[in-house]
Amino acid sequence: MTDAATGREPRQERSRATRHRLLEAALECLADVGWSASTVGRVAALAGVSRGAVQHHFPTREALFTAAVRHINGRRTEELTRRAAALPHGPGRTEAVVRMLVESYTGREFAAAVQLWAAAANDPALRAHVLPLEEDVGREAHRNALDLLGADESQPGVRESVQATLDLARGLGLADLLTDDRVRRTRIIEQWARTLDGVLART
Amino acid sequence: MTDAATGREPRQERSRATRHRLLEAALECLADVGWSASTVGRVAALAGVSRGAVQHHFPTREALFTAAVRHINGRRTEELTRRAAALPHGPGRTEAVVRMLVESYTGREFAAAVQLWAAAANDPALRAHVLPLEEDVGREAHRNALDLLGADESQPGVRESVQATLDLARGLGLADLLTDDRVRRTRIIEQWARTLDGVLART
Repeated sequence: MTDAATGREPRQERSRATRHRLLEAALECLADVGWSASTVGRVAALAGVSRGAVQHHFPTREALFTAAVRHINGRRTEELTRRAAALPHGPGRTEAVVRMLVESYTGREFAAAVQLWAAAANDPALRAHVLPLEEDVGREAHRNALDLLGADESQPGVRESVQATLDLARGLGLADLLTDDRVRRTRIIEQWARTLDGVLART
Repeated sequence: MTDAATGREPRQERSRATRHRLLEAALECLADVGWSASTVGRVAALAGVSRGAVQHHFPTREALFTAAVRHINGRRTEELTRRAAALPHGPGRTEAVVRMLVESYTGREFAAAVQLWAAAANDPALRAHVLPLEEDVGREAHRNALDLLGADESQPGVRESVQATLDLARGLGLADLLTDDRVRRTRIIEQWARTLDGVLART
């Protein structure tokens, strides 16, 4: 929002916009060049802000990139919620939900997250930032999937089948990193939705 | 084999041993420090051979590390074949097979492969080496899983369900990169096996 009297954005708004630009730039950077080449300087240049401004928002490189992945996860959740309104009810819903979930693990956002995961496996400082992030992301994805599927996890096998759906989605996302795996993925989604319908209906 | 007359290994045997040591060192290196820090010099030092010797066996860094992942994949297949003899027949077999397959996507070998995948996503030269490797590995893993499960993929849904099992395994492996995910994984394996038994029996 621009302050009508001065023609300038209020400081808080400007700060929020800078932060947002930094997060988006960090995400682009991670997806494009991986963790080791994703320096704070590179992100600052990409976002068009000074290194000092980056440090004002994020004290460390680890904090910057972890915040970026948290940011895109929040955006993904919003996107899923928005698209959920258009999903069919009754037959076909499970397949539509599984497709939507699986597709949310492909693309540049997922590619960036994989770079962060892979780097955290060998970097204790980064890992300390990524672990709580992963826990939050996992919990949110699980709750989301339960809601979308209308699944009752007090029934035997349901909790595990919903978690398996998300692990399958992550595996399919990994397969899609290097090649366009869409055709194979579509067949797997269709079959898994049929199977999952069986598990959910049995309960 | 040592030549009794000279006390030295024949040249071919020595060369094979050096190659094997290089592949193992490359694997350790990838798993420990990731792609960007995995230089040819580091692998040479770890294996205790000269850089010249590395270049004799592998013309490029990409060739060395791709060969290392191909090497551990071969070892994994042998290991699966060896362990398959001890698997139960009849009830319980599907779960034992799924557990064995999923566990083969955890540990240092898988961690090394993830580092290579992640790096290949941003590196066209490496990607050109990794793509044919991934195709071979995927084909072999699929054939292996079909055999172990005694699955007939001419039946509807079977091919996709077996592939989904391997994608699930990869997703679970990714979840295990940063934390010990064993307890959750065990419950998912048990439920997946029950579901898969349903698909295989239906055919």
